Amino acid sequence: MKTMTKALIAGLALTLSVGTVSAADPEDAIDYRQGVFQVFKWNMGPLGAMAQGDIPFDRELAAKHAGQLDRVADMPWQGFTEGSDLGNTDAMPEVWMNREAFDEKAADFEQASARLVELITEEAGERDIRRQIGAVGQSCRSCHDDFRM
Amino acid sequence: MKTMTKALIAGLALTLSVGTVSAADPEDAIDYRQGVFQVFKWNMGPLGAMAQGDIPFDRELAAKHAGQLDRVADMPWQGFTEGSDLGNTDAMPEVWMNREAFDEKAADFEQASARLVELITEEAGERDIRRQIGAVGQSCRSCHDDFRM
Repeated sequence: MKTMTKALIAGLALTLSVGTVSAADPEDAIDYRQGVFQVFKWNMGPLGAMAQGDIPFDRELAAKHAGQLDRVADMPWQGFTEGSDLGNTDAMPEVWMNREAFDEKAADFEQASARLVELITEEAGERDIRRQIGAVGQSCRSCHDDFRM
Repeated sequence: MKTMTKALIAGLALTLSVGTVSAADPEDAIDYRQGVFQVFKWNMGPLGAMAQGDIPFDRELAAKHAGQLDRVADMPWQGFTEGSDLGNTDAMPEVWMNREAFDEKAADFEQASARLVELITEEAGERDIRRQIGAVGQSCRSCHDDFRM
């Protein structure tokens, strides 16, 4: 009995310690997803300015920023972990209460971003590229409306 | 003469306005590069824990985090823009005073990260993968020693 208890305690300790290390701290998850959103912003800035005619359309610059945006497009969502709804975050509880709808918006964004890269790679016309940048921006806003305070 | 002056002023105004929009605000550049470093941290956490034996080695988890790390490995450096040496940053002035050495460390890190993905893709042994995670971590530290306060 003593041995069994010891074994149980040892097993529990191992489980807890592994759990502690592998499950991300909520604050780390928040810092992480906000970090990815900074990367979104950095790249959407010049793209949006081009779409709105605030800076001249520049195919090379568009390719750079669209490519970078697309490389991280799928990354933020894994940061919306269980327990990271509280803390220094603008995420609304709806992210966790209505995860399916959130995941759908996330997938829409990823598609819009991938399509933008596709258009640039296919050497589509400036007008189509600028319109697609608008669609990416619209996808951001649509998710912010429902899920960001 | 009047027309020429007007044209010059208009040209200058255009240059300034384009310059203002396209050159990133130093604070935005700082937020951006710190954002990318958060993505580094998020992925290096579990990789480092595996390398040090704090969590069990998990090939699938290693592939996920190494892949994500590698996708952003070349991104931070463009955020070390002119003028972003001042502000809410831990970057040392040496980044700007000795850019060549900084770029070399950056390239070392990118190589170490790419090699890690290669090893995982080639289904290398656990020992080699854990050693390469250590090399990536060493590359982080080496740059922090010289360029981060």
